[in-house]
Amino acid sequence: MSAPTAGQLVDRRARAVDALTALGAEGLLVTTLVNVRYLTGFTGSNGALLLAADGTGTFLTDGRYRDQAADEVPGLDHHITRDLMGDAAGRMSGLWACETHTLSVDVYAQLGAAGVSTVPAARIVEGLREVKDEGEIDALRRACRLSVEALNGLLAGPLLGRTETDVARDLEWRMLELGAEGIAFETILASGPNSAIPHHSPTDRVLQTGDLVKADFGARVDGYHADCTRTVVLGTADDWQREVHAAVQASQAAGVSALREDAPVAASDEAARQVLADAGWLEQFTTGLGHGVGLQIHEDPFISHRHAGRLARRTTLTMEPGIYVPGRGGVRIEDTLLVTSGDPEVLTTMTTDLLEIA
Amino acid sequence: MSAPTAGQLVDRRARAVDALTALGAEGLLVTTLVNVRYLTGFTGSNGALLLAADGTGTFLTDGRYRDQAADEVPGLDHHITRDLMGDAAGRMSGLWACETHTLSVDVYAQLGAAGVSTVPAARIVEGLREVKDEGEIDALRRACRLSVEALNGLLAGPLLGRTETDVARDLEWRMLELGAEGIAFETILASGPNSAIPHHSPTDRVLQTGDLVKADFGARVDGYHADCTRTVVLGTADDWQREVHAAVQASQAAGVSALREDAPVAASDEAARQVLADAGWLEQFTTGLGHGVGLQIHEDPFISHRHAGRLARRTTLTMEPGIYVPGRGGVRIEDTLLVTSGDPEVLTTMTTDLLEIA
Repeated sequence: MSAPTAGQLVDRRARAVDALTALGAEGLLVTTLVNVRYLTGFTGSNGALLLAADGTGTFLTDGRYRDQAADEVPGLDHHITRDLMGDAAGRMSGLWACETHTLSVDVYAQLGAAGVSTVPAARIVEGLREVKDEGEIDALRRACRLSVEALNGLLAGPLLGRTETDVARDLEWRMLELGAEGIAFETILASGPNSAIPHHSPTDRVLQTGDLVKADFGARVDGYHADCTRTVVLGTADDWQREVHAAVQASQAAGVSALREDAPVAASDEAARQVLADAGWLEQFTTGLGHGVGLQIHEDPFISHRHAGRLARRTTLTMEPGIYVPGRGGVRIEDTLLVTSGDPEVLTTMTTDLLEIA
Repeated sequence: MSAPTAGQLVDRRARAVDALTALGAEGLLVTTLVNVRYLTGFTGSNGALLLAADGTGTFLTDGRYRDQAADEVPGLDHHITRDLMGDAAGRMSGLWACETHTLSVDVYAQLGAAGVSTVPAARIVEGLREVKDEGEIDALRRACRLSVEALNGLLAGPLLGRTETDVARDLEWRMLELGAEGIAFETILASGPNSAIPHHSPTDRVLQTGDLVKADFGARVDGYHADCTRTVVLGTADDWQREVHAAVQASQAAGVSALREDAPVAASDEAARQVLADAGWLEQFTTGLGHGVGLQIHEDPFISHRHAGRLARRTTLTMEPGIYVPGRGGVRIEDTLLVTSGDPEVLTTMTTDLLEIA
């Protein structure tokens, strides 16, 4: 496992402090665990960071994590306590920025009762996390490479006659065998009519000739998540399956092409939807088109026509249009992509053509 | 997969409404996802429940889950929306109880801006969830049985010369092969000096003769989590290992004996600690003694000397004392237990004696 370097962590915290300036706060209380990890390197399940506006900071965790924190968290004072928020409150005075999008009402009240003044931090750290550094991109590359290798292995073997659950498990095992530290999320393996359900949990349904089989899956490596979907046909595809798959493939390609440094986020949403609309399938597309991916499987930016921002280089995100026809079947194609100044780099490098699996 | 019956769900909601009475609220807004699952049966990743004081309710989710909600959520109006909290606010008037221990400050402010008056719900649903119904106990029994069967299988095979990661993976695969829908949490597999780290992530360390090997693991079945720890020795245990293991075993037995209907929660904490103190090892015990287990791996009640309550029948929880000597090694023994009017029923039925593995 490779962790962020002390230098990378210092750089991340410096960028957080920069983003804090406009708020006029004494510092930032980081309580969102994944943001704590991003800014400190800590991978445990209970921790918080008090990051002062001068760049110094105190990391708080409980006794279970004393040694782990010593290993993982450089460049900060460590404070071990059973009462993270009580102790944090005692160390804050003046105005502090808080992560009010995740901080609970009760903890917020506790800070207030301790005399702490607060201002919303407005997803400052989530914003920083959109743009990945080299170490993060490397972890994502490895997670994606390994995911695709696992799927290729799965598709080489027999699928007919096996249950969705068995095939999903097989795919997950292959990722672990190839070196994933875990799966990125619970695998969606949907066959036949089930492929019309966007987020289907695998069942005991047996895969049959003529089925569309949709696999939405990914590996986790060093905390970073891959996200990939392919939909294949068992046996020979019929005309309807070809038509639907071609429409999704074209939509996905259009959405991918619009992912480029400085392009509006909404442009990729529009491009992918337009292709589905032109083909007459837009009403059968009922999910979102894509999302950032990194330390979380779903993170900023979320692709939507309502997103007013533009894309930054080194942002990683998915593009995943689909067509879902209840009772009949569905197709989704999804890649994890890295935004560049030109065409995005596809991290889940595998054909998007319709595969017919014997 | 077996889901709660419509009748069980109605009963759970009736108990929530009863608990609500003292607050004088029009209803309860349930936003904690696991509590939504408990009261509605919904297993997706985005949903909320407006439960009115007259027992009627509205379930809210987004378009991805329309069909799944139709399958899983009986006896409630369904409302499909992209803006769960905005729509929920529009349906609330008067005073509503909210889950302020998890509700974010921002959503709370959104409710306030929409004119909703709120009162903290004070973990009402977590309180109900402490006492399990028959279906829940059945799922926990299956999860625990399967976990222990997997460990017994693992311990029969060779362990010497394999890495912690390999052995942890093997244990997880065995649980999945035996029918787990997933693992309950990331397996702790700690060998030699690593066994002194309470929450150790598996590494490439190779298991050697003379090692203490600690496995903290569990299966998930129908959403319910098993939690079990055993510590074995590879080869023949030395005197120090025997002494430490015996102290933990005696402490665990004392703590388990104190888990009984109407007994103070704090009594089991005191009983287990007293044995460690008498043996001179209390300072090497740095974690908590146990926790409720069910739809979450860690849930109410948490065993502590500060817990002022008493145990109810049909509560499921863990008892898991340990001794951790940095640089040298550690032992933890943990069972998942069901509180009865007599001795608790051990769900993870396996000897707690020290096993020497060839």
